[in-house]
Formats: sequence, structure tokens, C-alpha cells
Amino acid sequence: MEIGIIGLGKMGGNMTERLARGKHRVVAFDRNPAAVADAKARGAVPANSYEELIGQLKAPRVVWMMIPSGAPVDTAIAELLPRMSTGDTFIDGGNSNYQDSILRGNDLKAKGFHYVDVGTSGGIWGLKEGYSLMIGGDKAAVDRLRPIFETLAPSPTTGWGHVGPSGAGHFVKMIHNGVEYGMMQAYAEGFAIMKKKTQLKLDLTQISQIWQVGSVVRSWLLDLTVDALKANPTLEGIKPIVSDSGEGRWTAKEAIDLGVAAPVISLALQTRFMSQDDNSYADRMLAVMRNQFGGHAVATGPAPAPTPVPSTVPR
Amino acid sequence: MEIGIIGLGKMGGNMTERLARGKHRVVAFDRNPAAVADAKARGAVPANSYEELIGQLKAPRVVWMMIPSGAPVDTAIAELLPRMSTGDTFIDGGNSNYQDSILRGNDLKAKGFHYVDVGTSGGIWGLKEGYSLMIGGDKAAVDRLRPIFETLAPSPTTGWGHVGPSGAGHFVKMIHNGVEYGMMQAYAEGFAIMKKKTQLKLDLTQISQIWQVGSVVRSWLLDLTVDALKANPTLEGIKPIVSDSGEGRWTAKEAIDLGVAAPVISLALQTRFMSQDDNSYADRMLAVMRNQFGGHAVATGPAPAPTPVPSTVPR
Repeated sequence: MEIGIIGLGKMGGNMTERLARGKHRVVAFDRNPAAVADAKARGAVPANSYEELIGQLKAPRVVWMMIPSGAPVDTAIAELLPRMSTGDTFIDGGNSNYQDSILRGNDLKAKGFHYVDVGTSGGIWGLKEGYSLMIGGDKAAVDRLRPIFETLAPSPTTGWGHVGPSGAGHFVKMIHNGVEYGMMQAYAEGFAIMKKKTQLKLDLTQISQIWQVGSVVRSWLLDLTVDALKANPTLEGIKPIVSDSGEGRWTAKEAIDLGVAAPVISLALQTRFMSQDDNSYADRMLAVMRNQFGGHAVATGPAPAPTPVPSTVPR
Repeated sequence: MEIGIIGLGKMGGNMTERLARGKHRVVAFDRNPAAVADAKARGAVPANSYEELIGQLKAPRVVWMMIPSGAPVDTAIAELLPRMSTGDTFIDGGNSNYQDSILRGNDLKAKGFHYVDVGTSGGIWGLKEGYSLMIGGDKAAVDRLRPIFETLAPSPTTGWGHVGPSGAGHFVKMIHNGVEYGMMQAYAEGFAIMKKKTQLKLDLTQISQIWQVGSVVRSWLLDLTVDALKANPTLEGIKPIVSDSGEGRWTAKEAIDLGVAAPVISLALQTRFMSQDDNSYADRMLAVMRNQFGGHAVATGPAPAPTPVPSTVPR
């Protein structure tokens, strides 16, 4: 079918190519002209403005936004709305907060538009392996998009599904990412214990490979870990700073709002915060308290130069 | 090659069959005559005593123990030793504490025997898919057993490896299981949050299936979770009690001994302890403290009848 794509970053660019390969007519826009040119080379119809994008799509239009969550989504919708027609469909395939998606769904529905939120997982591997799609919205709107989902998913019948009303897609994607935080932390801690067990001289790359096949902890995350260890067995040059990008925080807050215990996911998030702070005020407080009551030695010296933390957490 | 197997439970019985299919001559013993008869039907040479087992193996012998960890292993070695010959090899394929394995390795080496510890993962699926084998011991002893490992593993070249000296196999298996605790807890918490988000009416079986293909959280544990949810979508009749079987405790204690932070693995263990106690003294203490300082209501009544916790933690 015919679809417009807004946002041609790593995800949007690859999705454009996968859709074009699937014989869809993809009209592609990005603020960066180089990204538009790249999308053209990958099979898309180029658009250098919202006008060009909308003008090259026949109503009822479908526009898939693959842009940073938060204000950019609201801005894009606000700028697109006057150029589109009732009956058109907006798809938000980014990592929006599900509560925003519920509000946007209600608002667009009231204005006569369709809104579908699609939690999209698969990262840079999605082009080759397909994307896992968690879809929220009205059934009729979702059903019309079936050819798109069948092409983007790993196969027409696997890895995607309509999980509920507006917001449900982003809710499930948020939980997916929360689970991912916990899984990653569990692996990382296991490898850290083995790393410190120097008496056994363990080869962590070898062990990660043993675990890949037949073990209970085999997973795609482990496969990626194997690739990382093969490329850099000692993690040479990698600083111990772990960024976080929103969904982990939202998952931990959702657990609090619902009164559901989620200790491991929450703690996996907290360990990232700890990693982002190389001059922990709490640790310095603990050091001076120990000194006060027990006369224990305190390390002193200037604060380390702060290392910038790469962050994609929406403001 | 030729091998004796002691312990024909779920793991040992299936391993016997996989080895027999691989054209090895397997002499199989268990205290339970029915298990020996079953092993015979699956291709093994039956043995109804240690004497029969040892008598049917040519020196230098290889005896694989697949029995509960702790005292049973020491007892089996003590009873086998006088019947075996120097140069024979003991393999401990169970979930022994790696520190016990280091001691046993040293002790048997001093007596002229070989000792190999094999952390064995794969559960009831190992018969079909092969076992992940993490192997500790002297290189020469391990090398001689290569045909056995090549048959038990998922393939001759994958899923197994010699990871270090005596104890290293069980150490790596211990960490494997610790990681497993954390991964399981992360999934469980994610599903629990979705379960409580009743307004979205999420279908957890459907979502688990979406995640199976193309998502970042896809894994074998998730595949098993899908099977469990398909069979029993509401977990009808399942009590919220999670047993633990040793390696989780040992991993958490090892992290303490090494001074390595392993918060998520440790907390995943603690949540199992909480699940095993339906009349938590700590929670009752908290309730009365809140009552003391704030006059908050306290639930009262007789203690629930304790539910027995299935446990395989070695004494």
C-alpha cells in the first residue's frame, strides 16, 4: 500500500527500505536532506517538506512518524494536521509515553483522524530480521494497516499484533524495555562476578559462546553480547556509564502507580543512575558518616571531571 | 567410547539415551531398579550395584555422576573409590558447589584419579536439543572425554567447552543459574505490571508470542513462558511460591566474597525467599510499627496454614 514516513534515522531509514522492498509506495521525509536522498536511493519517493510528503499521498493517507518522543511528536502532529484530511491515519512508531499516546489518540479521534501507536523493537537488526510490533488503536484502523505490519514484522504471521486500544502498543513496548533492563543487568552482573574470579582465569568470550547453544540463558541479547566480547574481549576503552532512555523510568513509575512490586526492573534502572554519577553524593555522605562514628579513613581529593552521559530521555 | 552413569533421574536418564544413540557403550546404575530397567530400554547396559557398574567397565574407566549435590556426591565417591583403579576418571555433572569440586578434584588427584566437573544445563529439553556443558579439570582428562561431550552437546562444536581447572565448570554453571534467576524475575515483573493494567485488557499470551520473534527480549526462557501461558493463560491453580535450588544462594554469596555488586541477581533470590513465606515476620513487624507511630489499621487473624515449599537446596 501507500505510506508516508517522517523521520529517517537508524530506525526510520531501515523501515523505509524494508517497506520499499515489500513493494509498498513509501514517501519519505526528514529535516535532513541527506537522509531524504538516502531514502530515495533505498527505494522511497523523496519529500523535502511536509507539503511535499502530504501532496504525494492520496487520501485516506497513512503517515508513520519515527521521531523522538515527547514534544517532537506533538509538534509534528500540529504541523501535519492542517495539511491532512479527516479519515487520514497517524502512526506513532517511536518510544512515546503511553499516556501521551492515549491523549493523542483521543484528541485525533475527536478531530476525525485515526491514530495508531506502534511499539517497535528490533533496533538496527530490524531491516534484516524484521521488527517486533506492538500495536494499539481502534480495530478498524489497525486492520487497514495490515499490509504494512506484515512487511515490517519478521514474517506476516509472527512478531506483531494488535494488543489493545490507543496507548496499549506503547504500554507494552515500555514494559518490553523494562524487562530488557532487568535481563541486561542480570547478564552484566554474572559476567562481572566471573571477571573478578581471577583465580579461575575464565575466558568470558568462550563462556558467552558456550551459553549461546543449549543453555537456559540463551537469548538474542546473549548473542549480541557474544559479538561485543569477540570484538573487544576486555571492553578496552569502554567507560562504565550506562545511559537510559525513558522506558525504564516509566516502567518503574508505572509499577509504583499500580502498586505492583517490580524490584529487579526498578533496581536495574537505579544501577544505571549510579553509573551516570562518578562523584556520588550519597557515597560521599556514607564515607563521612563512617568517619564520624568510627574514625574510618576517608578518601579525599578534587572531584573527577564530569563525564557527559549520552541521554535520550525526553525532557 | 565407554562410560558409566550413576543417577538416572530426569537428567541422567535422558543423557544416557542421548549417549546410547551416539553409539557410546553406556553402563547405567541407579538405586531405583525401575530407572535401571528404563535405561536398559533406552539402550544402556544395566547395572544394579556399584560392583556391577564397575565390573562392566574396562580400565581406565569413566564414571559420570548425575546425582544430588552435597553429601550424596561424597558418599558416592567414597563407595566407588575402593572398587575403581588409579587412572580412572570421575565426572560430577550435577549442581555441586564449585568449592566442593575444587576440594574433590585435589583429593582425587592426590589419590591418582582424574576428576572433571561439568556444569550441565538444558533440563528436560537436553535429550532433544543437547546439553550446554561447562567443563572444569585438567586438560588431558578433559581431552580424553571429548567424544562424550561432542555427543551430549547440541553439536560437536557448539554449546560446550573446557573453561578452567577443577571447580571452574561448576563455578560457571553457578553463575549461569544466577543470571537465570535475574532474567526470570525481570520477565515475571514485566508480565505482572501488564496483568495489573486492567484498563488496557492486555492478552499476556498474545504479547509473549509477539515478543518471541524480532524483539530485543526474545529468548529460550521466553519461549518456555509462551508454552506455559498457552497451556494455562490465567495461571489457574498455581500458588505464588518459588523454590530455589542452591546456585542462586551461592552466586549471591560469591558476589559478597569477591566484593562485586550483583544487586539484581541477589534481589531475584530475595524475592524467592519472600515468596516462600506466606506469614512474613518482617511484614508483620512493619504493620505493628506503622500502628504504633501512626495508629494505622493492622490486619489480624490466625496465621495461614503454612504451605510446604518444594526445595532442592542441599543441606
